[in-house]
Amino acid sequence: MTNFSDPALGTYAIVASLVGVHLILLAFWTGTVRARNKKFVNPEDAGAFKGDQAEADHPDVLRVKRAHQNALENAVPFFAIGLLYALSGPSRLGAQAYFFTFLGARVLHSVFYLAQKQPFRTMMFAIGALATIGMAVHVLRVAIAM
Amino acid sequence: MTNFSDPALGTYAIVASLVGVHLILLAFWTGTVRARNKKFVNPEDAGAFKGDQAEADHPDVLRVKRAHQNALENAVPFFAIGLLYALSGPSRLGAQAYFFTFLGARVLHSVFYLAQKQPFRTMMFAIGALATIGMAVHVLRVAIAM
Amino acid sequence: MTNFSDPALGTYAIVASLVGVHLILLAFWTGTVRARNKKFVNPEDAGAFKGDQAEADHPDVLRVKRAHQNALENAVPFFAIGLLYALSGPSRLGAQAYFFTFLGARVLHSVFYLAQKQPFRTMMFAIGALATIGMAVHVLRVAIAM
Repeated sequence: MTNFSDPALGTYAIVASLVGVHLILLAFWTGTVRARNKKFVNPEDAGAFKGDQAEADHPDVLRVKRAHQNALENAVPFFAIGLLYALSGPSRLGAQAYFFTFLGARVLHSVFYLAQKQPFRTMMFAIGALATIGMAVHVLRVAIAM
Repeated sequence: MTNFSDPALGTYAIVASLVGVHLILLAFWTGTVRARNKKFVNPEDAGAFKGDQAEADHPDVLRVKRAHQNALENAVPFFAIGLLYALSGPSRLGAQAYFFTFLGARVLHSVFYLAQKQPFRTMMFAIGALATIGMAVHVLRVAIAM
Repeated sequence: MTNFSDPALGTYAIVASLVGVHLILLAFWTGTVRARNKKFVNPEDAGAFKGDQAEADHPDVLRVKRAHQNALENAVPFFAIGLLYALSGPSRLGAQAYFFTFLGARVLHSVFYLAQKQPFRTMMFAIGALATIGMAVHVLRVAIAM
């Protein structure tokens, strides 16, 4: 049996999977940029990957890590609140609007972070956060009314 | 249709939404404290927000980030284990006790972190972590017995 | 009522609870190693736990924190994608293979991180990430086909 015949849960399944894969791709990208710069904080990494041990990661690695950390900080409330929103009986259109807005804002946030584009990065952060807060308000209203 | 007629899932919906909003508010608070101190690690932020580029965030920003990071580290296991606990058929009273204990402990943890109050902050961390472990033990007992 | 009679959801309940407890144990371990080294970034901690205030955590504490951060970054997509995979109607065997592979890889990742073993740590990271991506592909195929 599958539970994705409910359109809101089906849309959440698509968007949450893509947000999760996006997080994993940022982790792989950190490793790629680190390997390219051959500076490693862990001495065992410097040995295994024939690089140098360093006090801190290369600035390019630190930038990817900041983008990843921001993605993680915003994906965590989305994963929980988005699922509850999908279970709260939203309209099909409302669910699609919230979920795809969040997905688009967070993908663009990573692009703008790596491309060093401001104030666009901060705008994308705000759009993603406000979408999540909007869904939380919907969940709270439905759950408190029960 | 809504799924919050189950009292445990309804309480989880309320508490998880508030824990999620709490995380987003800590992210906004980081940005506010950073803008107030006008020191930015990203050079493009210093340009866009008319501040100075710096090697590291201001100590006040670092404190909010540590509070946020601790909140995130503890919210992640709670979101997953709390949902499974709600789905495991707990008593209404047990669910309310666990969920509101976790919520109260984590809100107070952030307050005590920003107000620099010890050992109260560590006590709140321990209460939240033990509540999550208690729910995990309940989930494991129910799931393994199936 | 309990929902763990579905074998895939029951296996997810066991594995996700253990992954969550694993995260909490890494948080406790950070605190233990920090208390042993008696160096604290927060001045109020140095006062309460009779240690010294320092600019940065002890290198042993930083290693546990890096292991914890990597565990967190990989648990977050797993919690969301793994739940959706369990709800997508997988085969019992497929669910057990994916879930126990992820759990084993992540437990070994922490062991290898703390024991400074490479390239085994990176291999465990890759196995866990690929298992999560495999589940995401399954979820996307089922959800898009609806």
